[in-house]
Amino acid sequence: MNRKLRMGMVGGGPGAFIGEVHRKAARMDGGIEVVAGAFHIDPKLSHQMGQQLCIDPARAYDNFEQMLEKESKRDDKVDFISVTTPNNWHFPIAKACLQAGFNVMCEKPMTMTLKEAKDLQKIVEKSGKVFGLMHNYPGYPMAKLARDMVRQGDLGKIYKIVVQYPQGWLVRAIEKTGQQQASWRTDPKQSGAAGCMGDIGTHAENMAHYITGLEIEELCADLTTFIEGRRLDDDGNVLVRWSKGCKGILHASQVSIGEENGLAIWVYGENKALEWHQEHPNYLYVKVIDGPVQVWRRGNGYIGAKSAAAGRATRIPSGHPEAFLEAFANNYVNFADTIRAKLDGRKPTELELDFPGVKEGMTGMAFIESVVKSSALGAKWVKFPKV
Amino acid sequence: MNRKLRMGMVGGGPGAFIGEVHRKAARMDGGIEVVAGAFHIDPKLSHQMGQQLCIDPARAYDNFEQMLEKESKRDDKVDFISVTTPNNWHFPIAKACLQAGFNVMCEKPMTMTLKEAKDLQKIVEKSGKVFGLMHNYPGYPMAKLARDMVRQGDLGKIYKIVVQYPQGWLVRAIEKTGQQQASWRTDPKQSGAAGCMGDIGTHAENMAHYITGLEIEELCADLTTFIEGRRLDDDGNVLVRWSKGCKGILHASQVSIGEENGLAIWVYGENKALEWHQEHPNYLYVKVIDGPVQVWRRGNGYIGAKSAAAGRATRIPSGHPEAFLEAFANNYVNFADTIRAKLDGRKPTELELDFPGVKEGMTGMAFIESVVKSSALGAKWVKFPKV
Amino acid sequence: MNRKLRMGMVGGGPGAFIGEVHRKAARMDGGIEVVAGAFHIDPKLSHQMGQQLCIDPARAYDNFEQMLEKESKRDDKVDFISVTTPNNWHFPIAKACLQAGFNVMCEKPMTMTLKEAKDLQKIVEKSGKVFGLMHNYPGYPMAKLARDMVRQGDLGKIYKIVVQYPQGWLVRAIEKTGQQQASWRTDPKQSGAAGCMGDIGTHAENMAHYITGLEIEELCADLTTFIEGRRLDDDGNVLVRWSKGCKGILHASQVSIGEENGLAIWVYGENKALEWHQEHPNYLYVKVIDGPVQVWRRGNGYIGAKSAAAGRATRIPSGHPEAFLEAFANNYVNFADTIRAKLDGRKPTELELDFPGVKEGMTGMAFIESVVKSSALGAKWVKFPKV
Amino acid sequence: MNRKLRMGMVGGGPGAFIGEVHRKAARMDGGIEVVAGAFHIDPKLSHQMGQQLCIDPARAYDNFEQMLEKESKRDDKVDFISVTTPNNWHFPIAKACLQAGFNVMCEKPMTMTLKEAKDLQKIVEKSGKVFGLMHNYPGYPMAKLARDMVRQGDLGKIYKIVVQYPQGWLVRAIEKTGQQQASWRTDPKQSGAAGCMGDIGTHAENMAHYITGLEIEELCADLTTFIEGRRLDDDGNVLVRWSKGCKGILHASQVSIGEENGLAIWVYGENKALEWHQEHPNYLYVKVIDGPVQVWRRGNGYIGAKSAAAGRATRIPSGHPEAFLEAFANNYVNFADTIRAKLDGRKPTELELDFPGVKEGMTGMAFIESVVKSSALGAKWVKFPKV
Repeated sequence: MNRKLRMGMVGGGPGAFIGEVHRKAARMDGGIEVVAGAFHIDPKLSHQMGQQLCIDPARAYDNFEQMLEKESKRDDKVDFISVTTPNNWHFPIAKACLQAGFNVMCEKPMTMTLKEAKDLQKIVEKSGKVFGLMHNYPGYPMAKLARDMVRQGDLGKIYKIVVQYPQGWLVRAIEKTGQQQASWRTDPKQSGAAGCMGDIGTHAENMAHYITGLEIEELCADLTTFIEGRRLDDDGNVLVRWSKGCKGILHASQVSIGEENGLAIWVYGENKALEWHQEHPNYLYVKVIDGPVQVWRRGNGYIGAKSAAAGRATRIPSGHPEAFLEAFANNYVNFADTIRAKLDGRKPTELELDFPGVKEGMTGMAFIESVVKSSALGAKWVKFPKV
Repeated sequence: MNRKLRMGMVGGGPGAFIGEVHRKAARMDGGIEVVAGAFHIDPKLSHQMGQQLCIDPARAYDNFEQMLEKESKRDDKVDFISVTTPNNWHFPIAKACLQAGFNVMCEKPMTMTLKEAKDLQKIVEKSGKVFGLMHNYPGYPMAKLARDMVRQGDLGKIYKIVVQYPQGWLVRAIEKTGQQQASWRTDPKQSGAAGCMGDIGTHAENMAHYITGLEIEELCADLTTFIEGRRLDDDGNVLVRWSKGCKGILHASQVSIGEENGLAIWVYGENKALEWHQEHPNYLYVKVIDGPVQVWRRGNGYIGAKSAAAGRATRIPSGHPEAFLEAFANNYVNFADTIRAKLDGRKPTELELDFPGVKEGMTGMAFIESVVKSSALGAKWVKFPKV
Repeated sequence: MNRKLRMGMVGGGPGAFIGEVHRKAARMDGGIEVVAGAFHIDPKLSHQMGQQLCIDPARAYDNFEQMLEKESKRDDKVDFISVTTPNNWHFPIAKACLQAGFNVMCEKPMTMTLKEAKDLQKIVEKSGKVFGLMHNYPGYPMAKLARDMVRQGDLGKIYKIVVQYPQGWLVRAIEKTGQQQASWRTDPKQSGAAGCMGDIGTHAENMAHYITGLEIEELCADLTTFIEGRRLDDDGNVLVRWSKGCKGILHASQVSIGEENGLAIWVYGENKALEWHQEHPNYLYVKVIDGPVQVWRRGNGYIGAKSAAAGRATRIPSGHPEAFLEAFANNYVNFADTIRAKLDGRKPTELELDFPGVKEGMTGMAFIESVVKSSALGAKWVKFPKV
Repeated sequence: MNRKLRMGMVGGGPGAFIGEVHRKAARMDGGIEVVAGAFHIDPKLSHQMGQQLCIDPARAYDNFEQMLEKESKRDDKVDFISVTTPNNWHFPIAKACLQAGFNVMCEKPMTMTLKEAKDLQKIVEKSGKVFGLMHNYPGYPMAKLARDMVRQGDLGKIYKIVVQYPQGWLVRAIEKTGQQQASWRTDPKQSGAAGCMGDIGTHAENMAHYITGLEIEELCADLTTFIEGRRLDDDGNVLVRWSKGCKGILHASQVSIGEENGLAIWVYGENKALEWHQEHPNYLYVKVIDGPVQVWRRGNGYIGAKSAAAGRATRIPSGHPEAFLEAFANNYVNFADTIRAKLDGRKPTELELDFPGVKEGMTGMAFIESVVKSSALGAKWVKFPKV
């Protein structure tokens, strides 16, 4: 880090959850400073948020169009813009930011449809800007270790992937009580074609892909809306046929009482197997034939020796647990270093480029459209679109 | 227990695994004594086993036909016969035993086909004899507690069941090295139409049914044989539609490295959820809305107060773990008490009748035929036969 | 096993806990049969128990003296006698049995005082009989594996032992409500000089010694009676100086709410460390410098390859958990095989001799007397007597 | 937060571990900005660090005296100074900062001796400034929940505390290889009278006191230096007599292979018991009489309802794990809000005042001096000084 980057935001107003998570993550390492924002669709709340954040009042904007216009003219313009609005705004705002010449970190999902996603890909490409998509779970060091074990061939051919993301917080129709997080997530207009599968099923898909490098070829999805009156699925079970002959199961739920963010993955190869749980993120279980199970623990020398990416993603020694915000921050670190590399006129390294982007965003939309389509057909197998 | 029952065996010769498990389980509580057997298809080995077991040499028989004939004539004839032969022999031997007037405890699977299973049902019914099927996992006290929580309505409507049974021991083609357990399990003639799904997938199905009381209505199964040259599936992923609108996933594997007997089940209801793991059988996790997770632990007063069946299935106090053999033995206890009730001319209680029988055997065969059929169709949904 | 041994019992009447555990354990493997007993101090209850066990009424004796006299004259006399009475009867009965020429399996503690223990040692020696003391925890396969790792030098010099045995069942004065287990355990006349430390502290001491082979040289014990009116300690914390420069902590409690049988041990050596928990007995955690933690799991090929004793102590494959009764039974297996060896006129093997005996009994009494003495002095260091 | 505080630092130069942890923690929530520092005893490295942090070069000072002098004169002077130097510099620098009129956040240990600690107390008092001591573990939300359960009387009288802090990283004499962290920690001149017990034993003491509110009255400590040539203890076992009749064990180690930061605590009361593990900080185990164990999980509504302090210390929803840095940051949040309260002329609330300070610092030094004294006497009981 030889340059502090200036961050602008669209979204993240008073009371917003994910916007503040972006800020905490971005701030943590001292290389990024929030200096501008259109924090809320209501200009008053945007200004209020600016005050709360102690930023220059002139840079708390009425709306994102104003921000783009004004920031573009400044010498000390923002280095990138984080988009943390409701889902339906991600695409138009990201597009506008890119077209105005700004690098973008976009909260997931990238768009509302696969078509938009493909459009955005072209826009990103044309812009030449850095585009990050905040799929935060690959930011965990042990996810990187797992990926590198697969890449280094430790598992051999991969036979089976079991990946799950159960939650229980929507087991009551709290969207009817005005609960903000529930309301937009269960509203097709703001959330998209899928509910549970869009919100968290995509995380499961993304994690499986990140670790194994495999692509979905076909899937068969049985989505359900258990809560009466809810307009989107709140549970889904999916059979998956991954590339290279790998089989799998993917399931997610928002009505599984007692589950919080139970993202977990089991990858079974011909020579080894891996197991990782998001709620206990500092441990990776490595299983071998006829030998003890190995518990690899974040922060040790042998971790960095095996995976440079895991080592780089680690802030504090073993036994001092790291968690969600640090994983989130790791995406910002790599995204920011990629921007710095460009500012310095050098090619970003592979380690710096290790953050999700437009490719992952397209895959996510393809996943949503596929599971919705399969389920609508009565849970028939559908081919996964090439992205 | 006011009467020691005399047990005969078919199978369980020198080196047999499951036969000796039956004996250990039957002996444990002192109410059953092995006094006769046709322990091996080779008469010499049958006699040798008899010696090893210190039984009267006259009662170590050349074959089961001889046993049935000779035992029938004795005053102190065996009270029941346990059938622990390879799968393909279960049906003809069980049938012969019942028709000769003996109560039968049969190792699973009950038969090789659903048709045979239905035939056996009629034979059992006609015989008026007690028939037990050794699905051992419902014998665990915490499985009984879970079932009783569901029965008492604690969970409300059940939304989702996730049940799994991963193993890793067949990740190499050890059947080609002559490993006995692997050889017959991968041989369609001895094992039946399914490999992994027959051997352990049925346990998963049985456990889900035992706890929830639900029946499978439809399923969609994607079976795979990962190991080249193997003649039966060694992995399977199944989407399930249970009765009463419950959805689910069931998966099993014999090629998941590092998994041993990872039978585990998650039952999600509208009001509570349950989680249980066979390898840590003394604990049942009960999850509620907006409250701490509860860890119910076998052997405590509050367990028996909630579930008489769990209390009855418990031998030693909390903190002294009980495990597989004790669960197995619980089926024998109930089976034997049911026989004793009949011998005493009284109706067995519901607690005594709590062991799997011909109904579970038919369901198991229906399950095997359904998953094989579904998978053969390319993983299409198939209706589950009524049994 | 080429000979079924005949077992007699003193104790284990109707409702007794540990007597029935002895029977279940002894029966499990089919090599031992209970054929005689003086099961209760009340002859009526002794006969009643005999009936319950379906043994020859002539061999359900009025008292142990009668049993010794009558059994001595039989051709088919019992091969050994298990003593499972209240503590204060262990010594006189064991002594009488040995002097009458019977092998003895004695429940712990062996005696009420160290002096008695030393006397018993001489009696055992003079008798030439086999004497087993039921410290059941070394019967666990993973305890044997741990011991063998230490013996094979894997840990190097041992620096530190932390061993604990917390329970919570006596946190209320249930001895005043007539609860049988609580009553005798809190009565110095029946239980001995120590309460908690005698009942379970000795298990902790025994386990640490079994695994490491080290002896206590000095200790400093702070015992407490938390429950008003209780006559013996219900909690104790001990600093220990083991032989060869090893330091340690040993603590036990009967008033630690929520703890069941939390026997657990951590052994830290200069090269490796071990961790084992009785309530999860199938797992041994092996810790190395700069490498993943290893979870060794009972029943796998690599376990038996490392420790013949662990392999021998294993009945069923990995993933089918084994537990308390099986560990208990392992002591019986070795004890019985040692008797069989003698009957066959051959020297028992080291594997057969792997069960606690009179040496462990003396150490247990020395432990009790030492902690009581240290605590009475205000928790001063005291030398541990040589035994 | 209505005002961003300006933070100065002494220490935290290039490569320093704990200084950067302070910065990450301070930055995370956006209310604190590092603007000045004397980051290293070598002025060049101090300036270099200033550059790295992108601060005004004029405020990267040659030494702390210069910083105090120059900052005192500025209108935008730092609001507080964090002292993160080696231990032996904590006292003189904290003293100088306070006397120059600055609020201070001091890394632990506060001083090198109890006498200095008492002196500092007077200095703090006289200064009227806010003084925080960075004992970070009470910053965990679940530690606050535990404390509040005790305060609310849920446990009743506390019988026993078991607290441990095992580590294994010093099992080899890495101080001889020049490893920086090891070198100063094993050097009495930089580290103080105790090694392991000073570095981490004090954390164990602090945590036990924080949760229970009890004070040590007497202790008996057996310290050991296992590694040849090391000049300070690397392991210690302590019997503790806490106030109000509570007994306990406290042990810590730096030579326990495989342990990382195994700080864990068990508090046993007459009505309930608590268990918490630093490496799994989001879970508090609550144990009751004759009921299931309860797993309280950070971030849920019922947590905040029970403990306002735990609720306030929580950033993200349940299931998104929080960890070490967030706990650390919680101390900064409360420390900063206390400063803000003073700046605003209002009395800080109890929730704001919830961070360790000079009292904890004195207790820590009393602890170190007591264990060293006790051990030097051969592990005799010593009275704990009143602080």
